[in-house]
Amino acid sequence: MKDNQNISVSVIKRLPRYYRFLGELKKQGFTRISSGELAKRMNLTASQIRQDLNCFGGFGQQGYGYNVEQLYDEIGVILGVNTTLNVILVGAGNLGHAIASHMEFERRGFKLIGAFDENPKLIGGKIKNTEIFAISDLEDFCAQHKPTVAIVCVPTGPAAKIVENLYNCGIRGFWNYSHYDILSAFPDTIVENVHLSDSLLTLSYQIKSSEKVEE
Amino acid sequence: MKDNQNISVSVIKRLPRYYRFLGELKKQGFTRISSGELAKRMNLTASQIRQDLNCFGGFGQQGYGYNVEQLYDEIGVILGVNTTLNVILVGAGNLGHAIASHMEFERRGFKLIGAFDENPKLIGGKIKNTEIFAISDLEDFCAQHKPTVAIVCVPTGPAAKIVENLYNCGIRGFWNYSHYDILSAFPDTIVENVHLSDSLLTLSYQIKSSEKVEE
Repeated sequence: MKDNQNISVSVIKRLPRYYRFLGELKKQGFTRISSGELAKRMNLTASQIRQDLNCFGGFGQQGYGYNVEQLYDEIGVILGVNTTLNVILVGAGNLGHAIASHMEFERRGFKLIGAFDENPKLIGGKIKNTEIFAISDLEDFCAQHKPTVAIVCVPTGPAAKIVENLYNCGIRGFWNYSHYDILSAFPDTIVENVHLSDSLLTLSYQIKSSEKVEE
Repeated sequence: MKDNQNISVSVIKRLPRYYRFLGELKKQGFTRISSGELAKRMNLTASQIRQDLNCFGGFGQQGYGYNVEQLYDEIGVILGVNTTLNVILVGAGNLGHAIASHMEFERRGFKLIGAFDENPKLIGGKIKNTEIFAISDLEDFCAQHKPTVAIVCVPTGPAAKIVENLYNCGIRGFWNYSHYDILSAFPDTIVENVHLSDSLLTLSYQIKSSEKVEE
C-alpha cells in the first residue's frame, strides 16, 4: 500500500462511498467488478475510479477488474474500521440520542463509551448500553477513560464552552453537529462537521431554482 | 440580481454557510463587514468570497465592505427561505423523529405537513404538531395535499419501494438519509443526501491517518 499522507481531501471524501457501494455489491454476491461497471453504478467515470483507487496503490487488474471483497476489505483498513477509537456523546437530547442509537459505531471503528447531558431527566438513563452522565462528570470520566473523539450534539450557544472543556480533557477528534466552528478555535483538532441546516438550505435552493419540481 | 442558472454546485454548497455566518454576525450587532474580515472568520480567502458573492451580482462596495443585514437577506432570498415548500417525513423512527423535531423548517422555507411510518406504535402519534400516519395512507395524502419534498428516513432495504411510491405520488424533491441512490433510479429528481456513516468514516480516516490525535 502506498503512503497515504498526500491524498487529497476530495479523494478521501469519496472513499466511504466506494466502501458503501462495494459492501452492497459484496452482499449481492458479486466477486469482481470492472471500473466501467462500478463507474456506472456510482455515477462517476471509469478513469476517475482508476485514478482514485490508484492513490492507494492500484488494486485492479487489467482484464479482470477489481476483486470486490479484497477491495472492500482494503478500503476498510484504510478507513480504519478494524481499529477502535473510544467516543463520547455530548448532548443526549433528541438529536444526540437518535444519532447514538442509529449509528453502528462498531462497524465503523468506534466504540461509544459514555454520554453526557445537563438535563437531570436524562442523567442516569441509557443509550443502547451506554450510561448518560452529568456534564460535570466529564473531566473525571475523560481522565479515567481517555476518549479520543466527542460527538458534539449541543446547541451552538453552549458549544464554545463545552468544546473548550473537551479540548482541555485531551480530546482532539470531533464529530460536530453544532454550528460552533471548532477548527478555527482549536486548529490542532480534527473535525468532521454535519450541518443539517446547510443541507436543507441547499435542497431548498436546488428545488426553488429548478424547473424539475413544480411548486 | 444576476441569473442564477449557471452557478457551480460548489458555490451553491457554500451559500448556506455564508448565510449562517452572516446570521451570526447580524445577531452580534455587526452592520457591515469587509471581505477580508469575513474571510478570516470563515477560513476562506477574501478573493474567494468576492468571487462567490459576485456570482449573484456583487453586493459589496469598495471601501465599505458588505452590509451584513442586506447580504443576509439577499442570500436568504436566493436560498428560498421566504417561500414555503410542503414537506413530509417518511420513517418516523428514532432518526426521523429527531430530525423532524430538531430542524427549524419554517426558518428555512419548508413546512412539515405530515409524517408516515409502518409501526403501529407510532401511527396516530405526533411530531411537534404534525400527525404520524400509516404508510398506506401516503397516496391519498399526497393526492390531497401535494407535498413537494419527502424526508426519507427509512432503512436502505425498504427505501427503493417507498421512494418509487413517493415518485409516483408526484414528489420530486428528496432529503435522503437512506443509502438508496434515488438520483440514479429517478434522474428527474432533486436529491440532497445526508450520509451520516460516510461522515463518520471520513472522521475515522482523518484521525487514524493523522498524528494530531494519539490513540
